[in-house]
Formats: sequence, C-alpha cells, structure tokens
Amino acid sequence: MGEFDLIARYFRRPARRAALGAGDDCALLALAPGMQLAVSSDMLVEGRHFFADAYPAHLGHKALAVNLSDLAACGARPLAFTLALALPQVDEVWLESFARGLLALADEHDCELIGGDTTQGPLNLCITIFGEVPAGGALLRSGARAGNDLWVSGTPGLARLALDALRGQLALPGELLAAWRVHLEQPTARVALGQRLRGLATSAIDVSDGLLGDLSHVLTASGVGALVEADVLTDLIAAHPDVATAEATFDRNLLRRCALAGGDDYELLFTAPAAQRAAVQEAAQASNTPVTRIGRIEAGRGLRLVDAQGQALQGQFPSFDHFA
Amino acid sequence: MGEFDLIARYFRRPARRAALGAGDDCALLALAPGMQLAVSSDMLVEGRHFFADAYPAHLGHKALAVNLSDLAACGARPLAFTLALALPQVDEVWLESFARGLLALADEHDCELIGGDTTQGPLNLCITIFGEVPAGGALLRSGARAGNDLWVSGTPGLARLALDALRGQLALPGELLAAWRVHLEQPTARVALGQRLRGLATSAIDVSDGLLGDLSHVLTASGVGALVEADVLTDLIAAHPDVATAEATFDRNLLRRCALAGGDDYELLFTAPAAQRAAVQEAAQASNTPVTRIGRIEAGRGLRLVDAQGQALQGQFPSFDHFA
Repeated sequence: MGEFDLIARYFRRPARRAALGAGDDCALLALAPGMQLAVSSDMLVEGRHFFADAYPAHLGHKALAVNLSDLAACGARPLAFTLALALPQVDEVWLESFARGLLALADEHDCELIGGDTTQGPLNLCITIFGEVPAGGALLRSGARAGNDLWVSGTPGLARLALDALRGQLALPGELLAAWRVHLEQPTARVALGQRLRGLATSAIDVSDGLLGDLSHVLTASGVGALVEADVLTDLIAAHPDVATAEATFDRNLLRRCALAGGDDYELLFTAPAAQRAAVQEAAQASNTPVTRIGRIEAGRGLRLVDAQGQALQGQFPSFDHFA
Repeated sequence: MGEFDLIARYFRRPARRAALGAGDDCALLALAPGMQLAVSSDMLVEGRHFFADAYPAHLGHKALAVNLSDLAACGARPLAFTLALALPQVDEVWLESFARGLLALADEHDCELIGGDTTQGPLNLCITIFGEVPAGGALLRSGARAGNDLWVSGTPGLARLALDALRGQLALPGELLAAWRVHLEQPTARVALGQRLRGLATSAIDVSDGLLGDLSHVLTASGVGALVEADVLTDLIAAHPDVATAEATFDRNLLRRCALAGGDDYELLFTAPAAQRAAVQEAAQASNTPVTRIGRIEAGRGLRLVDAQGQALQGQFPSFDHFA
C-alpha cells in the first residue's frame, strides 16, 4: 500500500446509504422508485479556484459546496459523492483539515462519500455529486417564460467583494476581511431552497460565474429575454450587514459590478410565475433562505439592465471567469 | 463564454440515454427497476499515469478504459460518464484527438458522456463512470472462498513490458515497440466478460496495480489465502505473439516480474467454484476474451507463489504504483 492509499484513511467511514462504499472497484447506489439521478462534476484547481494558502478545511467545504449548489439548482436532494484528489505530497495536517471541512458539510446534507481516487500531482480536487429528484421534476434552465418574475437568493456580490479585498484592491480592517472571506471561501449551497422550488420555479441556475452571465444561460436555454433591476441588487449588497457596518464607504459602481458580475456566489437565480410570489416567499422562509425579486422575464431576446427609474444602464459586465 | 467553455464543444453530442445531458446544472439519469448504480472515479495525471507526449487519442481511450475496467470488475453494464478536464492551454489539435479517442471507446460501449467540467490548470483527467447492475448481483472483492479457482483474463505483464521498452530498459526494434505500446496506452476493458461472470464468479477485481497486489486486496476482503502458479503466468506472457515472435530473448525472471507485478493491465482477476470451470470457459468464449486458470483460493491467510513443480518461490513482487 503506497502513501497515497493511506490518504483514503482520512476519508473512510462506514457505508450508510450506499449498498457498497469505498474500497471495492465500484460503489453501489440504489435509487428509490420514481426517482431520477442528478449528476454534476466540478474540478477545482489551485490558483484558479482557490489561493495556494487557502485554509484546507475551507477548501474541503468549498469543493463540496460548489457541487451541492449544482444539485440545488436542479432541486435535487443530495445522496452521495466521489472525491478524486491529486496532491503534490502527503501532508497529514493538510489532509486532516481538508477532510474535516469536507465531511462536516457532507454530514450537514446527509451526503455520503462513496468512493474516489487519490494520486500524486499538482493540487486538484474533483468531486462528482449525486442527488435524487422525482422523475420529470428537476428544475431546468429551459423553463423561463415571459412574464415570470426573476428571483435570486442571498446577496450576490459578497464573494467578489471579499476577493477584491483579499487581493488588496480594497482597504479593509483585518477583522472585517476575516468576516468577508467566509463569503468567498465557505459559500452556502441553497440545497433546501432548491428542493422547495420544485413545482414552483419555472427555471433555475446557480450563480457561479456572475449573475448576468449565468442569467444569459437561462435566457438562451429558454429562448426569452429579461429585465434586471440593477439598483435592487446594488441596494441588497449595500444593505448587507458586512457592508453596511463596515465603517467604510463603498463606491456604488463597485457594489453594482460585484453584484451583477462578481462570481463565486453559489446563490440560486430562478424564475417563477408572478402568481406564485407568496408561495416563493413561503419556500424561502421554510428553507431559511432570503430571496429577492430582481426583475422579470420578457418575450424578446436580450437582457435589459435598468436603474430605479427604469432607465437603461450602459456598461460592460463580463462574466466572471474565476481568478482569470 | 470563455475559451474553456468552448472546449465543451468537442465533447457535446445529443443526449441519448440521459434524460438531460450536458449543458444544465446537472445531468439526469434514470435506472431501470431492480437495478443498482455502480459508480467509479479515476484521476489521471501527466507524468504519473501517462507520458507528457502521449498521443491524445490514446490518452482519451485510456482515461475511459481504466474506468470501464472498474465497471467490468463489478459485472456492471456501462451507462454514462462525466469528464472533468484541466488543461494548461487550449490546444484544438490536442482536444480534437483526445475527444476522438475518448468518444470512439464510449460509443463502442454505448456509454454516454453526460457532463463534466473544463478548467485551466496542469493537465489532469478525471472521469466518473456509471453502470447498472441487478440489485445484489454485483461482483465484489469479498466473495472468494477456499477451493475456488483463481482466473485471470488476457495476458498480464504486457503493459509493463511495453513501459520498460519505452523507458529504454529493453532494446526493441521500432516496429515492435509500436505494437507493444498499444498494451500500455490502449488497454482493453473486459466489460463483456465482467457481465457474463455475474452469478458465476465469486469475486473479481481489475488488475491495475499489479496482479499480486490486486489479488491481495481480494484476499483481505474475503479473509482467505491463495496459491498462485507463477510459471503459468510466465508461460502465458512468453507465448504471447508480441513476445514469442519478437526475435529477441527475454529473461524469464523479467517476464515473471512483469506478469506478477507489472500493473496497468486492466485484466480481470476473478475466482469461481471449481465446478464452474466449463461455465467460465463458456463465458470467456461468449465474450471473446481468453481466460487462464492461475491458481486457487486457500483457507489460510497469505499468498503462496509456486513454480511448475509446486515449489515455493522466493522473491519480492511489490505492487506497481504506476510510474513511481
């Protein structure tokens, strides 16, 4: 047994949901009758998706959270995941911390690590996640219809604001920076909200590359356009306690840019019929997840950005390609 | 859309088996009633699992083949896979070739690419594969029983012999080297044999890290020992056309070492009751896969290696840890 097999010990636990867990050639999973399997895979690379000095427990959290977020966007319930890990060397302190952060979030969502691979190589984390969703009930990108409300969970832009601060592009007191980086390094996947939106939302996507960029995927898949109220989003981030109490003044243009194109938010962007506003709010309350109505779907193609007076806004808001 | 989204175009095809394929947050898969999902994940890293100058079509083949081999070892039928890919830069010639090799093997096994991820980073290929197996019918490592025959498919050791030749540790004519490297770079996953062994074999594993090392996993999981006839394996590789017609003389110790501990074989090592010998041969013929009986399972713990006269062999045969 090589040292890279030993790594597996940090992640090994008794099989629970899996009929057969890690340690055989395959893991075995059963699906309840009438359920479909939802599958997503994300690869995280040092320097691109996280900093080399990222706290390993946070990295473990984030690697799973971004995958949970994909399940959330489909309205799926998490079941299990595989972890493939390339490491430059075996660092037991790093591994213990990484596994702790990863498995704590896995436990929180009753999502079982059922297998994977470990090897020597430049640091690379690849998680493939499995969830279940009633057949035909998954939230898709393609269901947005003209007249639908456009909603978003949480406060888009905080992760990007934290990234700017970590890069030294924003001057922040140290204790504030520590609070902010949680938004970047320990995102919350909106798993409970996603499941409650099944049958309610007409489309959904998780915001990983910037709100406008991800919205454009929904618009393309659905063959519709949208109007987005930029000031609603700017007010939302400006009013967030971490920003409002920062004893610093932030340029509204910066806040708007972060909210519209920041990336790494892992919030749910979704559409629902206007008649379902109360039901959406109930779903949000039941899942303890704030949601905000930020615009509406329109029949024409294209994306219109307006201010509080309904005036069209100019400006480029390119999609956020992680640390690129 | 960044250039790394464009990569996906090389892999995009219409969804077939998947209810929803690549392009949404998750892919959706249904399982037939009574079936379990078999899942395996393998990560391949440059310099460890393949050479930097590997022909990309062969690399695409191998990345999927090693995952198909895990399904074969469980007796599962391939359904689908995800591909996560980190690339140093976008090289369209490389991508076209890689995708061609990958998808040709996928088509051969009716195994659908349903999603994944692409990012910039040191070259890294992570495939997670999904197969189906009747509930309770999967071949496991834990079912070997004393008195069972020990079988292996194909000719273990050829891949390692090719690796030694590629490293210049064996002098070979160029055309022979070209023929040999196929064993290393384009392994054949024994998918059809694996499925036919369900209900027949008592345990199975695929030989990726060397026959003796992988056998030891079966012995540990099953709580048994084994006797392995080393000369049967040495004769097998010595008689393989690529070796026997090589117009070179190979040291039998080298051949034995390659067969017993070579690695990268992706052959099936399995056990079956002695009463099933004819049935095993029928399964082998029906799947067009040669199999050889190489020993038997014993009640005690431990692994006994004997020569043709039944004499115990000395020697260290460490497990093959890829290019380490």
